[in-house]
Amino acid sequence: MTAEIICVGTELLLGDIVNTNAQFLSRELAELGVSVLHQHVIGDNPARLRELVAQARARSELLVFSGGLGPTEDDLTKETVAAAFGDTLHFDAEEWAKITAFFARTGRQPTPNNRKQAMVPTRGHKIPNAHGTAPGAWFEDDAGRCAVLMPGVPREMKAMWTEQIRPALQRRQNCTIHSHTLRVLGGESSIASKVAPLFASANPTAAIYCKTGESEIRVTARAATAQQAEADCKAYLQKFRDILGDAAYDVDVPALEYTVVRVLRERGLHAATAESCTGGMVAERLTNVPGASEVFDYGFVTYSEAAKQKLLGVDAALIARWNVVSGPVAAAMAFGAAQASGAELAVGITGIAGPGGALPGKPVGTVYLAGADARTGAGWLQRLALGGYHDREVIRTRAAMYALDLLRRMALGLPVPDATAITRQTPPEPMDL
Amino acid sequence: MTAEIICVGTELLLGDIVNTNAQFLSRELAELGVSVLHQHVIGDNPARLRELVAQARARSELLVFSGGLGPTEDDLTKETVAAAFGDTLHFDAEEWAKITAFFARTGRQPTPNNRKQAMVPTRGHKIPNAHGTAPGAWFEDDAGRCAVLMPGVPREMKAMWTEQIRPALQRRQNCTIHSHTLRVLGGESSIASKVAPLFASANPTAAIYCKTGESEIRVTARAATAQQAEADCKAYLQKFRDILGDAAYDVDVPALEYTVVRVLRERGLHAATAESCTGGMVAERLTNVPGASEVFDYGFVTYSEAAKQKLLGVDAALIARWNVVSGPVAAAMAFGAAQASGAELAVGITGIAGPGGALPGKPVGTVYLAGADARTGAGWLQRLALGGYHDREVIRTRAAMYALDLLRRMALGLPVPDATAITRQTPPEPMDL
Repeated sequence: MTAEIICVGTELLLGDIVNTNAQFLSRELAELGVSVLHQHVIGDNPARLRELVAQARARSELLVFSGGLGPTEDDLTKETVAAAFGDTLHFDAEEWAKITAFFARTGRQPTPNNRKQAMVPTRGHKIPNAHGTAPGAWFEDDAGRCAVLMPGVPREMKAMWTEQIRPALQRRQNCTIHSHTLRVLGGESSIASKVAPLFASANPTAAIYCKTGESEIRVTARAATAQQAEADCKAYLQKFRDILGDAAYDVDVPALEYTVVRVLRERGLHAATAESCTGGMVAERLTNVPGASEVFDYGFVTYSEAAKQKLLGVDAALIARWNVVSGPVAAAMAFGAAQASGAELAVGITGIAGPGGALPGKPVGTVYLAGADARTGAGWLQRLALGGYHDREVIRTRAAMYALDLLRRMALGLPVPDATAITRQTPPEPMDL
Repeated sequence: MTAEIICVGTELLLGDIVNTNAQFLSRELAELGVSVLHQHVIGDNPARLRELVAQARARSELLVFSGGLGPTEDDLTKETVAAAFGDTLHFDAEEWAKITAFFARTGRQPTPNNRKQAMVPTRGHKIPNAHGTAPGAWFEDDAGRCAVLMPGVPREMKAMWTEQIRPALQRRQNCTIHSHTLRVLGGESSIASKVAPLFASANPTAAIYCKTGESEIRVTARAATAQQAEADCKAYLQKFRDILGDAAYDVDVPALEYTVVRVLRERGLHAATAESCTGGMVAERLTNVPGASEVFDYGFVTYSEAAKQKLLGVDAALIARWNVVSGPVAAAMAFGAAQASGAELAVGITGIAGPGGALPGKPVGTVYLAGADARTGAGWLQRLALGGYHDREVIRTRAAMYALDLLRRMALGLPVPDATAITRQTPPEPMDL
């Protein structure tokens, strides 16, 4: 099946908002095995819309619209598409009752224009909107070509798509689809080179999306039954996990901190943070997870030498000898945070986020990350070189990712790549990697 | 002038990336006074591209392309547009030398396909690419209709646009433009209602963009000379400032924390943070500003009652009497953080970010924010009701914005709206607002 996406809205043409609807719909259609030939953005102009619908109908079997269902007189999308598909609109008392009830709840009166929103297709059918006032519309011509009209508000559009239109398209294509998203630490190029052949499959499909310090791999399987799609999807996901090992940290979670909080909770562990260059980012991410209070009590943002001494007990002589950006100081911060908080696990981070502050042998992006396990007195030390990104925000974000992953690995007893094992008593010399 | 934006790229049609280029170009063209009639996304398909270019040329005076300049055989955008505009391409030795030098620097060999990137317009002209290998192209037909081709990589596209194409279009339109962005605390609807008439102007133009807890107002003036455009822009900006008062906190800064760090530095002040529900977000934002170490040393993330007692000296009896989410505890956190850090100013934040944790009379989104001035022993207390957003992330982000603004207002000696004046010795009763 071929499709075109048509987004109607002056605010898109003026650049007031970014068109996330087009991305969402493109990705969803690709997963359904539908080829998207064009995306269009157009204003509330009936003549241009009529021209575009005629061209798109001549090329593609499915036209997917978002926007243009508003109550103002300018919004003529539904009328224009109805005419192009040889359909008419009629007043729907049930939709009108919903609209008036909505206005009553918010203490307002509907205007005559709002009645436009209660007009629904005669040959086609309406699509109820569970999250807003404007129903969607489905038009179909004798040749089986369809147009689907949805609201432009992303929340309403996504709900209508997911709950109603996507299942209908699956039934038409006589298949079900199932997706999972694997989250993997590391950059897209390093991951893609290991699993490149797996992206060539037509079903299940796999796509990689690059994020700062990690990537998402989305696997989608199509099959005749839901059970088969789910089984195919899981089996294909396992192929990625077999190759990527413990860098693939979780499935269908919003972010690494969700995995860290879950793992800590499952193991009955607590974590503390001692942050210099990340300035509280690790604590902020951990506490963004609902229920983080079960596993996190103390976060120390020690941005000066005095703060490191006072809150974490870092020895002034250690700082004087090794510099505040050094392995020994990171280790002392981590063990000091564990001590001061009573947490079983702690991380200490000190580094140079830039743009200034580079030291001899320690360019911008040099970050020392230490993990302490108060139960054993053992830990890990890493020297990270994140300066290639030339961006304070990216350096901090990547350092925080490494710190969260270190907590995960310590909690699970996994090895830590490119790290040196340390103990609370390790003499400082070998620690300044 | 009328224009259409055409983005070429399969990754857009598959939904792999969101089309931020279209938004950027739409906004820029709007500022130049150009009407954008359509945005299009299309794949590397010469037949469909030819059809689209013919249609767009018939409607619009300017076609702005991004993407399709890559070295693969599929990338035929330049060839297709050249043919449509009655132009041809020829090999440019200078561009080829740049491409081969780039490959040499990165230790690789160019392929024969890369020679395509050195093909430039014959009647039209090339547009040098200071940030990548592929030059852009400018085509123009006898009727004065133009097509501008730029790379799809946003960094390269934006640089080429800003440095070369935008000035060329300004010259064509015989004007210069100048923009400033005013940042204003508060939601779009509350701000827009106060300054609505100012958005109706055709020159200077003003547009409002809503962010979490604040809005950006971008003012753009067109004039014959740069000085006049700058003067017009500044005068119009002042009209907004006159109405919005001290909620308009700065011009042309990336975020509120930049203003806070600047103000603290100018006044020779230091700030400390004591955070519960925001979990380090205020510290993280302050330390995202280069040079924050001059004004920030200590951040306390006290996520448990024990941590508040131990690090900030909050009295256990105070917590027992008023609950840990209360005005007295926020005040004790702020004064405790000032005491423990030696900073002149401190903020304390305790609240319910949700989704769980609501208390009688304190729904999700209830946040107590206190500010302490160690120099005077005086401070401010606010009870915020942020639950309408039903979103943990939004509640935390808005609470952090209020905390940063409180630091700004205390540093500048400004009044704090909807806040109660407190002192270190205030008895707790009137504090639990």
